[in-house]
Order: sequence, then structure tokens, then C-alpha cells
Amino acid sequence: MNRRPETKKEYHLLLGVVLFLFLLMAGCLQTRSLKEASWSDESLREAYAKPVAAWPQATLEPGVDPDAELAALNDVPHGIDRNRRELGKQLFFDPILSASNQISCASCHDPDLGWGDGRGQSFGHDRQQGKRNAPTLLNVSRWEHFFWDGRAASLEEQVFGPIQDHLEMNQDLTEMEQELNAIEGYRTAFREAYGVETITRADVATAIADFERTIRSRVSRVDRFINGQTDALTDAELRGLHLFRTKARCLNCHHGPLLSDQQFHNSGQHLMGRPQEDFGRFYVTQDSSHLGQFRTPTLRDVAFTGPYLHHGNIQELREVLTMYNSGMPQIISRRTREAAAVIPVHDPLLQPLGLKDQELNDLLAFLEALSVRPRTVRAPEFPRNEAR
Amino acid sequence: MNRRPETKKEYHLLLGVVLFLFLLMAGCLQTRSLKEASWSDESLREAYAKPVAAWPQATLEPGVDPDAELAALNDVPHGIDRNRRELGKQLFFDPILSASNQISCASCHDPDLGWGDGRGQSFGHDRQQGKRNAPTLLNVSRWEHFFWDGRAASLEEQVFGPIQDHLEMNQDLTEMEQELNAIEGYRTAFREAYGVETITRADVATAIADFERTIRSRVSRVDRFINGQTDALTDAELRGLHLFRTKARCLNCHHGPLLSDQQFHNSGQHLMGRPQEDFGRFYVTQDSSHLGQFRTPTLRDVAFTGPYLHHGNIQELREVLTMYNSGMPQIISRRTREAAAVIPVHDPLLQPLGLKDQELNDLLAFLEALSVRPRTVRAPEFPRNEAR
Repeated sequence: MNRRPETKKEYHLLLGVVLFLFLLMAGCLQTRSLKEASWSDESLREAYAKPVAAWPQATLEPGVDPDAELAALNDVPHGIDRNRRELGKQLFFDPILSASNQISCASCHDPDLGWGDGRGQSFGHDRQQGKRNAPTLLNVSRWEHFFWDGRAASLEEQVFGPIQDHLEMNQDLTEMEQELNAIEGYRTAFREAYGVETITRADVATAIADFERTIRSRVSRVDRFINGQTDALTDAELRGLHLFRTKARCLNCHHGPLLSDQQFHNSGQHLMGRPQEDFGRFYVTQDSSHLGQFRTPTLRDVAFTGPYLHHGNIQELREVLTMYNSGMPQIISRRTREAAAVIPVHDPLLQPLGLKDQELNDLLAFLEALSVRPRTVRAPEFPRNEAR
Repeated sequence: MNRRPETKKEYHLLLGVVLFLFLLMAGCLQTRSLKEASWSDESLREAYAKPVAAWPQATLEPGVDPDAELAALNDVPHGIDRNRRELGKQLFFDPILSASNQISCASCHDPDLGWGDGRGQSFGHDRQQGKRNAPTLLNVSRWEHFFWDGRAASLEEQVFGPIQDHLEMNQDLTEMEQELNAIEGYRTAFREAYGVETITRADVATAIADFERTIRSRVSRVDRFINGQTDALTDAELRGLHLFRTKARCLNCHHGPLLSDQQFHNSGQHLMGRPQEDFGRFYVTQDSSHLGQFRTPTLRDVAFTGPYLHHGNIQELREVLTMYNSGMPQIISRRTREAAAVIPVHDPLLQPLGLKDQELNDLLAFLEALSVRPRTVRAPEFPRNEAR
């Protein structure tokens, strides 16, 4: 039961508080609508002509690093020894690393396909269908953990995942060592790169990982804009950049040079109760609060690294934006929901955005300005014994 | 030695002729410049709101079929028996058709990649690198000959090309028959589809070919426009359509429902004297007038069937347009030219076009309006014996 205010003084106080809150709210609403309405293309360009730190304030939610911001991906030398790099490249493209000697790392990570495979879900040994989309290897040196569920903590550890996986390259590592040691060209290459007489799995992992660290995006027009070339973006792209940081709420998860917070989120795409059900991070941690969480993917070169999302069911980037615009709700049938002990917690960062068609187009233009086709990389010659 | 005109009458006649020719030329020039200048977006839309036969006149060169024109790709039922279609689909996706049992038709013709493989040049057995780009299978039932060089006259004949090729699936056909006959599920499927007790290569070819005949583009916005929905194209796309038929000269080779004349042309891309040298049609006919000729590719769904050209060296459609704009010259080094007995004849249909940036954008918009993502097709289950 509510207590009734008993004196006139209390009434006045309550009235004052209500009035104050009302005015505060009205003020906020006005500021907000002014903010949204007040940007002409010219004023937006002026505001963004400044260094990143002086850009209009971004819309970041509580709990998100308040320093989260876009950052250029400036090309720094990788400092990896040429012998190791070239050896790693051979191993990366060589199908000898698979049980059937037909599948290589490059089968799912092809430079022509943005260092992914362009397919919804990858397939491997005996053309068995995998469940997830092959992520790009561009800028892989910058990740803190690997796979959509983050189950590997280093590139070296990651390498043997697909090589041993029965659905992927299906290789026994001892057999792999034997096959490589039987090839004179590989023995010579390992001697030159590592000073060893016998090829071991550990050196194979290091060589491949070191080659992968050299796979990097080219400098995009967004980078050039951040680095001070204020005419590098068109008006539409610039409007997209502003939306990305504000109304579209993208920056909450997509920030830094990779445009990823490198964290795990449940965006409702676990497809619980359906054939493609996938609880992601939960399989690694067994923590039910991680149900349906996947690593925030990079947006670098996103225009040509589709299909999208961990399940790869979405072909068009425009459709991904439409899904985010709707708040990316998690759809779980009533029957599944009632039978479940725990329901995945939908990330509160995801909310319906109310973006209009033109705003979605602007966002798309910005994402395309983040994307530069990688240079063509041709498969190297593989060392083989003459008798082969 | 020139004869001098001897009488006044002759002088007047000559003067009259010269004057007439001059006026004729001036008139042509004026008509031409009027023609190019006179189209507003509104007048263009009005002119193209009519049936195709009443559209503004196309720019077709002598020798090109004067009836060459765009045509809608209306969806007609394929009338292929369900059992044969489903069996063909299994065979198409099943890697058992390759020597290594790892490579299937779908490896290079993947629905997720526009029924191509998205790679510059395809690779096959032992991940050996091929020389040419895998063409899309969309609308393949409409082709009159197959492969970039037209060396097969039917789909059934085409099927065994990649299956037997040592660089591709590397399969022996007798072994293929044995492997299939050893699988009870396949024996049953062939019995139901063909009423046969033994699986033969001929029925394998028919089943795959029949499945491939069901692979078709979806109706695009250009089709809807041709079919009378006059608001199906934007202004830019409509300008692109007009350029396609006139100044950009595309219609000369790209016409009909496939947007291909199904003929062979040398567009100067044979890379003579370089590592990727490829004389195309000449290898089939041994006729030196066919040096460097390749079949005109379809432009259906071209926005997602890259990389482009028979060699697949071009990733971006915009870049292809730029190359055509320059007249697609054939670049042969002086040394190669001097050493050669015969030089490929550059197709005279290809000339520098003088298209401005905006015009290239309009053309690109038109090509994108021709493209609709194919429906997702999932790989079927493969028949396997339980013991396997």
C-alpha cells in the first residue's frame, strides 16, 4: 500500500520533483531531436574534419569501454623472417597437410575470397558440411583469441584445430610429420628457417602462424579519412560513419582498428531448437550465461567477406543491417522455450534502431568504404620429391 | 595521274557533290550530338516505357544480327522428372565422382558463389591450379556449346570433361561406374529414375545434365522492366540500359535472354607471350583466325559471378568496364610480336568508348539490376553403404 503524502510541504516537494524530472526528460528529448535534426552534410563534414578525439560524442552504453572509438589500421612492418614466411606460405597452400592430400588451409581461406571461402558453411573431408562460416584471416595477427567461440588463445594453437578436425582436414599429426619429413624440399626449408634436421608439428604450427600474421588489409578510405585526408569519404559515407557511432549503435561492439571489441555476445542467432542450433562460447566455458555467444567479427573488408554471421546464412550485407535494425531478436519457439532449462540471454546492447532506408544505405556506404580488395596472392610451388 | 575537270559544268557538278557531302556530314554530326544531348531522365523513361520493339534504336555494327536485342528471362517449367533431378543433384554434389573422393562438381560450381567458385582460376586434383575461371551454371540449359572455348556441344558431353581432366577431378570412368554400382542407394536411385539394374556412365551424364538444366536465375528487375513494369528500374539503371544499347556498344555481343550472342570473340585477353597465354577457341578448331577467341559470357547475375574474364584476373566489375572503355586493346610485346608467325586478330567490335565516370556508374547500376542472388541450395545426403 502506498503512503499518502501528509503535509502541504510534502506535496510541494513531490510536485517539484515530478516537474524537475519532466523538464529534464523534455530537455533530453529536445537535445536528442535537435542533435538528430541539426546535421547538414556540411556541418557533419566540419565536425569530422577534426582529429578522432574531437569528433561528435559517440553513443556508448554503460558497461562499454568509454574510450571505444574507431582507429586507423596503419600498415606496420610485421618483422617476420623471410624464410619462415615463405615456408609458412607453402604449408598453408599445400594439401599434403590433410588426410586425403586434397584439402589445404587455403581451401577455406582463399585470398580471392577475402581469405574466407565465400560459402555459407564450409565443407571439409569427404565434402562433409560444417556448421559455421569460415572467418577471414585478414589482420589475424591482431586477434586475442581464435574461432567464433574463442577456443584457441594463439594462432599456433588454432592451426591444428582444422587440420585434426574429422569434418575438416582429418589429419593425424604424426602422419603429417612423417609425410613432411619424407620430402627433401621441406627438410631443406625447415633447416633454413629453423636450423632443425627433423620437422616437428611445433615448427609447422609456427611457420603457418607466422605466414598468417602477414595477411593484412590494405589501407581503406576510412583509414585515410581518420589519418586526416578529409575528402577521402563521400557525404553518404560520412553520414554512415556518424550513424555507425551514434543512432545505429554499432560502435558499442565494433570499435578499434579491427572494428571488433574482441568480446563475445549473444545476438540471438543461436537458432535454438532448430537444425542449426549452435550455442557458441557456451561449448567452451560450459557457463550458461555464455549460451549463444559468438566473437564480434571484424568489419574490415566486410563488403567481400560474406556470407555473414557465424552461421553464414545471410548472403547480403544489406540484409544483415536490416536484421540489426530490427534489434536482432532471438526467435525461440514456444515448445523449445518451455522444454528448456535455461534460455540464452539476449545481449541488451541490441535494440530496435528505427533506421530509415536512406540511413541503412548510408551505413552500407560506410562499410563499403572500409573495404579494399586484397592483393592477388598466387599459390606457391609445393616441394615434392622427383619420384612423386 | 588525276584527270582535271575540263568544263564549267563538271566543276559545278563536283562542287555540288562536295557541298552535298559536307552538308550530309554536318547533318549527321548534328543529329548525333543532338541524340546524345537530348535525353533527360524523363524523356528516356518515356521512350523505354514502350514495348522492346519500340525502344530507341540500338547501335549495332554491320555483321551483327539486326534483331539483336535484350529479352526477358521468363521462368518456364523445366519438365524434368523428379527422380532424375534428385539423383542428378546427389551426383553433382558427391565427391565420389573424383579420383580422390574429395572433389565434386559443386566444388567449382557452388550455389553460394553464383554457381561458380569465386576464385580467379579454379583448382582441382592435388590442388593443382587451372588456367581458366569457372563459369556459372546459371541458365546453362540455354547454351548451345560449353566451356569458354565451346569444345562440347551438349551438357552430357561437357560433364565428363572436368571429371576426367587430370588437373580437375582426375577420375577414370570405369572406376567411377564400379564405385557407384557398389553403393546400394545409388543402384536403387538409378533403378527408379532410369529402370536400369546397372549404372552406366551415360546415365550418370544424363542425370547430372538434367539437374544442371534446373539451375536458373531468378527474375531480375530488368526482366520485370522488359515485361512492362516501368518503375522497376531507377533513373541511373535506365540510363545504364540505354548506354548498354548505344554508346557503350555492349549489345553487339551481349543480347538475348542470356545477354550473350553465344559467339566467340577475341577481346585481346589471350595474354600472348606471357605465362597465362591462352588461345581459347583456336585450340579446338586449329583455325588461326580463332586465335584468342572465347565465348561471350552471360551477364545474368554478373554482379556476383566474379572474378571476371576467362582468366579470372579481374576481381571488380567496375574494372572490367574500365577495360572495355579503353577498347580492351591486345597487348603483345614487340619481341613476341616479331617472333610470331600469326598475330591474333583483335575483334573490331571493340573500340575505345569515351565513357565518362558517371556513365560507367550508370552501366554498373544496370548490370547490378540484372543480378539477383540465387536461392540457397543445400548439399543433399549422399547414398552410402552402412558398412562405410
